Order: sequence, then structure tokens, then C-alpha cells
Amino acid sequence: MTPLQDVCIRRLAAPDKAAWQSLFRAYITFYQANVADDVIEETFQRLLSGQEGFHIGYVAVDADDSPVGLAHALFHRSTWSATWYCYLEDLFVRPDVRAKGIGRALIAEVMTEADRRGATRTHWTTQETNYRARGLYDQLAAKAPFVQYRHQHKVR
Amino acid sequence: MTPLQDVCIRRLAAPDKAAWQSLFRAYITFYQANVADDVIEETFQRLLSGQEGFHIGYVAVDADDSPVGLAHALFHRSTWSATWYCYLEDLFVRPDVRAKGIGRALIAEVMTEADRRGATRTHWTTQETNYRARGLYDQLAAKAPFVQYRHQHKVR
Amino acid sequence: MTPLQDVCIRRLAAPDKAAWQSLFRAYITFYQANVADDVIEETFQRLLSGQEGFHIGYVAVDADDSPVGLAHALFHRSTWSATWYCYLEDLFVRPDVRAKGIGRALIAEVMTEADRRGATRTHWTTQETNYRARGLYDQLAAKAPFVQYRHQHKVR
Amino acid sequence: MTPLQDVCIRRLAAPDKAAWQSLFRAYITFYQANVADDVIEETFQRLLSGQEGFHIGYVAVDADDSPVGLAHALFHRSTWSATWYCYLEDLFVRPDVRAKGIGRALIAEVMTEADRRGATRTHWTTQETNYRARGLYDQLAAKAPFVQYRHQHKVR
Repeated sequence: MTPLQDVCIRRLAAPDKAAWQSLFRAYITFYQANVADDVIEETFQRLLSGQEGFHIGYVAVDADDSPVGLAHALFHRSTWSATWYCYLEDLFVRPDVRAKGIGRALIAEVMTEADRRGATRTHWTTQETNYRARGLYDQLAAKAPFVQYRHQHKVR
Repeated sequence: MTPLQDVCIRRLAAPDKAAWQSLFRAYITFYQANVADDVIEETFQRLLSGQEGFHIGYVAVDADDSPVGLAHALFHRSTWSATWYCYLEDLFVRPDVRAKGIGRALIAEVMTEADRRGATRTHWTTQETNYRARGLYDQLAAKAPFVQYRHQHKVR
Repeated sequence: MTPLQDVCIRRLAAPDKAAWQSLFRAYITFYQANVADDVIEETFQRLLSGQEGFHIGYVAVDADDSPVGLAHALFHRSTWSATWYCYLEDLFVRPDVRAKGIGRALIAEVMTEADRRGATRTHWTTQETNYRARGLYDQLAAKAPFVQYRHQHKVR
Repeated sequence: MTPLQDVCIRRLAAPDKAAWQSLFRAYITFYQANVADDVIEETFQRLLSGQEGFHIGYVAVDADDSPVGLAHALFHRSTWSATWYCYLEDLFVRPDVRAKGIGRALIAEVMTEADRRGATRTHWTTQETNYRARGLYDQLAAKAPFVQYRHQHKVR
């Protein structure tokens, strides 16, 4: 792994909008999914809001302070914890800057924040066949012997 | 399946405390886990609080209005949704009243509330080997082709 | 579990043909698969042949010596064993006589034969969602942390 | 992928013994397993024998005709096939020559032989977490929705 240099992790900020949109859309496309434009806009505003109940946005930025990766983490309650669980919902690194430790650095930043808030668990999911990501995740956390069920509600 | 009769689903209430504790502890034991007494107490108070950001508690009660099953659901934000995701964190039915549709009725109640709030997804996990539960879940939702990673933070 | 009585396990024999065909077809239908009539006929003849390289056929028979379950086991070479591996390819119990220990008894018979021949492993697969079967298998063997790949060759 | 050049696939031969042993042992070590020396010796003799019921050995050799990869395939009967199933039990490529298409070429050779013999299926397993291998296998075959159970017999 080429050492991570000239890349740092910071909170998402208003001027990142165009670069963030590009990364988030590439991430959604990776999952062969669709998210409506107004939801993406709403998500960006929520990430900036810093309010409890909304995700925290992080970006990995290059030497020009330009975002090349993102992470979105939500602190939520659990019936098994007096404090918080931290849910890392999204993680993406631009394909041309992969294998440099940027994903690992983004997760580390999220886990540091989770520690700071006293969260008892950080959790995330990935596609069973996302082998590149799993190679990293296996080093950072335990694969849970759980399966996930999802019911998509019809949107009115 | 014996038809569900004399059982109904309602919101958890203060007088359910002893019965709820018994059910929640049996559920935790099923997972061969431990949750500290003060966390269980805190969780009960939060379930009653009805505040945004905390779980909603449901119980299945018998003809004597005594809880024989429970479900805990959290409405949380998602970066993929303008509204909510509904997370069914806990589901338990007392072993002696299983196979009567109580688990199914608890999930239906949670999904109805999710619909009412405009949530776009209801999700939950279960142990890979919890075959009894999975037989039911396969009928109600899709098993996601995702694996879950968990990092337990050291509690200070 | 109702104790297994009036049921015993024996080798498949020529007079079992009609009953065996009915069981094998029900098993194939369970897997929503198709096997051509001439292959089923060929398989029956091979099961009776007793020749090395072909499967051994077992049936569970009721008090009238009528087959209600089947098991087909193949002894094959492995590069990891000086002796044999035993592959339990098929196992089926008629739905109306399940939960009586017949599947368990069929597997036990196969494993006894494997021991007798000095086989170092008995292995089999089942559908990920065949929860009834897996509940039994989890008691008898270890689920391997392996995934299986299959390439179907075009039949000329 | 660097094009595969100066590498070809051929049948294992007696002079390959030392190189084959080195590859087979590295493969066994990868699985953190142990195979007794006499079993490895027996396996080598069987691979050379060419007899029905034993595996066929293939090696990928470099420009000096020296083995850098191996594949062992067994043709065995199935109750679902009038002909054969082909079981690719072992596949290994020396770490320093990976990502050149050697694994793919070894599998292709096995499948060509399977076609030649009229086999209806080629199958193999790999560790759930062997992501490098799975990235290749996903391109060549379908991951079966099956789980495998294994019972290790005590060796007398």
C-alpha cells in the first residue's frame, strides 16, 4: 500500500457540494441503484446541518482540498446500549485513488468519533461480493453471523 | 398455524415492566449475550418516553392483557431516503406461545407504523442459523445480499 | 421427536423400483429441478449394481417394508485422503413421515458405512434456505466456511 | 491482466515431483491444514496413474517447463447425470506469478476435459473469504445457493 500522503480527512463543508455529489452518485451507481435528485439534495443539506438524528459527513481530500472519498455516519440509539451505536451507511473512494489507505482512514475517523461519543458499536454492511471492500473490513471488524432482511415500502 | 386469537398487539406501557423485563431478558439469553441491568432499565424508560430518536415498544398480549411477545422499532434517517428507515432491532415471542402468528403480527404492526410515517424501508437482522425465524422472515421480506460488519468499542 | 419405530434402514433392492422412483421424483421436484426419465432409470440400475464408482442406495422402510425415505452415497477419492471421502448426494424423507428421526437414521447408516470403509470425510450440501434440513445437519456435522461454484456444461 | 505468455498447461508427469510437492504443500499451508507425507506421496502416484476413479493432475509450466501452478480434477458419478460430474478439488498458482491468467487457464483446461468426457457439471469450493479466488470464479461459474456440511471421521 502506497502510504497515504497529501490526503486528509475532514468534515464535509458547503463548498464541497459539486465534488460530493459526484462521489455520492458514483457510489450509488456502483450499487446499481437510483436515488432521486431531491433526496440527494436533501441528504447534502442534512449532512451539513450537524443536527442530532442526521448523519455526519466526512470527506477525504487531496492536496488541493478537493474531495476524493466520502463517509456518512449516523449515531442512533440501540436497546442494547445506554449510549449510541454508530452506523457507517456510506463509504466511497474515487477509483483512481484506491489502494492508498483512504478507505481505512475514513473508517478510522468514524470510529474515533464513535469512541469520542462513547458509542458501544460501529456497524456497516457491504455486498457479499464486494471482495475488495471485504478484504479491508475483515481487518477492521468482525463479520457478524447475521443475515439482513429488507422490506421496501411503497412510496406514496 | 393455529389462528391468532385472544392475542393483540399494543404499545408497551408502564404496568408491563415486570413482564417486559422477563421477555427482554429471555431474548438476550437466546443470543447468549449480556446486557447490564441499568441498560435494561434505561431501555425501558426510553421505550415509554415516546421521544423521537428512541425506539417504539410493542407487546403482544394475551386475553389477560399480559405481554407474551415484544418488538422494538427505531425510526432513523438514511442518506438514501428523504423520510425514514425503520429498524426492527428486537423481536421475541415466549416459546410456549410460538407458531400462532404472534411474531408475524408484531412485524405487521411495525410495518404499518412504518407505512404511516412514510418510511421507505424496514430492516432487521437475525442469526444465520435462526432457522425458525428465517422461515417467517423469508415470507415477509427479502434477504439482502449483504454482509454486516461489527466493531465493538471498548466501554470506558 | 416421536421415537423411530417400525422403520428400519436397508439397502435399496430391485423390488423397490416403483416406490424409489416416487421418492426420487418428489426429491427432484423439491429442488424445482428436472432429471430425464432415462437418467432416473440409469441411476436406479447403477444403485443396484454395487460396483465401485457408483452410489450406494439406502432406503428407510416402514413396517410393510415399503420405502418412505432414501439416501444415495458415493465413495470417491480425494487428494487429501489415502482412503475415501463419502459424498451423500441425495437424502429424502416422505413429507408425511417427517420429524420421526428417519433422516437422522439414514445419515447415521451412511456414516457407519463410511467408517467401515475407512473414509476420512462424509460431506453433503443443502440449499441455504432448507432450514428444516439444516436444523438436523447442524447437529450432525459442521457447516463448512466454503462456498460452492457450479458450471453446467451444455449437454450435446 | 498481463497476458499469459510463456506459460502453458499440460498433464502432470513423473519428473515434476519435487516442484509439484512444493506447490501442493504451499496450497495446503494456505488452508492452514495438514496432510501427512505418505498421503501426499500416495496422491502423487495416483495422479500419475491415469486410472479411472483417481484425479487427473494438471500443471501450468513456465518457459523452462517448470510447474508454477496445479489443478487436480476428479470425474465421478452423480445420481443426476448419465455421464459424469467433474470435481476440481485443488487449484493453486505460485504467489509470485499470480494475476497473469494462470488460474483461469488451469480451470479452462479442466472444463475442456469435462466437455470432452461429456460431463454435465464441473464444481468446486473455496473459502468464503478467499476473495481473490472468488473474483475469478464469479466470472467462470455460478455460486450455488447451497451450504456444505462436513463430518470428519476419526482415522483409526
